[in-house]
Amino acid sequence: MTIKAVLFDLDNTLIDFVKMKMMACEAAIAAMRDVGLEISHDKAWKILMDLFKQYGLEYQKIFNVFLKRVMGRVDYKVLSAGIVAYRKVKESFVEPYPHVIPTLIELIKRGYKLGIITDAPRLQAWTRLCGMKLQYFFDVVVTSDDVKARKPHEMPFRVALKKLKLKPEEVLFVGDDPVKDIDGAKKLGIKTVFAKYGFVKKLEKRPKPKYKPDFEINDIQDLVKILPKVLA
Amino acid sequence: MTIKAVLFDLDNTLIDFVKMKMMACEAAIAAMRDVGLEISHDKAWKILMDLFKQYGLEYQKIFNVFLKRVMGRVDYKVLSAGIVAYRKVKESFVEPYPHVIPTLIELIKRGYKLGIITDAPRLQAWTRLCGMKLQYFFDVVVTSDDVKARKPHEMPFRVALKKLKLKPEEVLFVGDDPVKDIDGAKKLGIKTVFAKYGFVKKLEKRPKPKYKPDFEINDIQDLVKILPKVLA
Repeated sequence: MTIKAVLFDLDNTLIDFVKMKMMACEAAIAAMRDVGLEISHDKAWKILMDLFKQYGLEYQKIFNVFLKRVMGRVDYKVLSAGIVAYRKVKESFVEPYPHVIPTLIELIKRGYKLGIITDAPRLQAWTRLCGMKLQYFFDVVVTSDDVKARKPHEMPFRVALKKLKLKPEEVLFVGDDPVKDIDGAKKLGIKTVFAKYGFVKKLEKRPKPKYKPDFEINDIQDLVKILPKVLA
Repeated sequence: MTIKAVLFDLDNTLIDFVKMKMMACEAAIAAMRDVGLEISHDKAWKILMDLFKQYGLEYQKIFNVFLKRVMGRVDYKVLSAGIVAYRKVKESFVEPYPHVIPTLIELIKRGYKLGIITDAPRLQAWTRLCGMKLQYFFDVVVTSDDVKARKPHEMPFRVALKKLKLKPEEVLFVGDDPVKDIDGAKKLGIKTVFAKYGFVKKLEKRPKPKYKPDFEINDIQDLVKILPKVLA
């Protein structure tokens, strides 16, 4: 059956999310030390990374937890200095990976519908898309808040298919997470592309995947080779 | 003959250029006064606007001329304060008009090629396109530096047609300037769309146009109504 839509994971597939987050954390630590937090950079960094492993990279109150651990309490001057520096860097740094925009444009030219299935919260997903001016490219955007479920759960995939009025065999899913993205999509019979370039940068431990992806890519523009020019 | 490409003027057609420039000038005047330039805001504003009328909105050394007029010399502390404030606002404010990106995407979906013909210098044109992440949308970008001629001269239009391998009857040109854009394109037999929304905001005096545009639009998304869905 012909592929009619290409769906993407967002963070680490379209956005170099971990790089952005790490640069923002560097700035936050420097800013907190600047207003008086007494800790070496290296020690602060180690504690923060341990907390990310424990709470996940999307945890929104990580600096609160961090300060409780380091100071025994949350000093709001220090917290705010960290948050402001963090946001400034993060905002200026939400950039798509190289070749994302021209690849999306080429896929649109070739007649494919495009979509996003992300585990990011709704507001974060949309602010990132808007920050990159990518909000107009997608026919469907499914966030974890929209479906109250996260990949590899089948719900976000089912909702995306329903909104596009397409069958599993008619879409291709592109993601960097072997379990959430690849297993999640394959379970439903969706063909998958493993975005290898986004994989290496994760922090958390991962379970073993059950399925193999149909394709692997080292650059998002490799999709153009996978997907034929003319649609049936 | 079927339309196969839509070509656009850039400033005041895709970008609200005058608004951006005026906001940046407000910031520059405030910053120059802040570091010691002794002049009222209103007087400074009037002098600056008169200089723009005289030198044109694209003149790159306008603050040098301004300071010579106001102080009798160029004080580099004042000049730099003005330039830094100007650039900061301008950079954060290069935004496409509403509906530009979704309209371009819809036109791409409908199979049209897209292009830019601008009188802006090459570097300015490209930095604005890149600032808006619009650099990937266009099959051809012709700037005044590329052809050593400005609209309504036929050269930039001819170069764009040649690069696209299209005849004048196969393209539609969209612009806000009745003489440069509409007359320039019509002379060659190119169908034109007058972007009325960009017209009112100009400062310079204009000569009278010779031709009437084929269409007038109040919002760029009106193009979607003008251009048919299916191409021959």
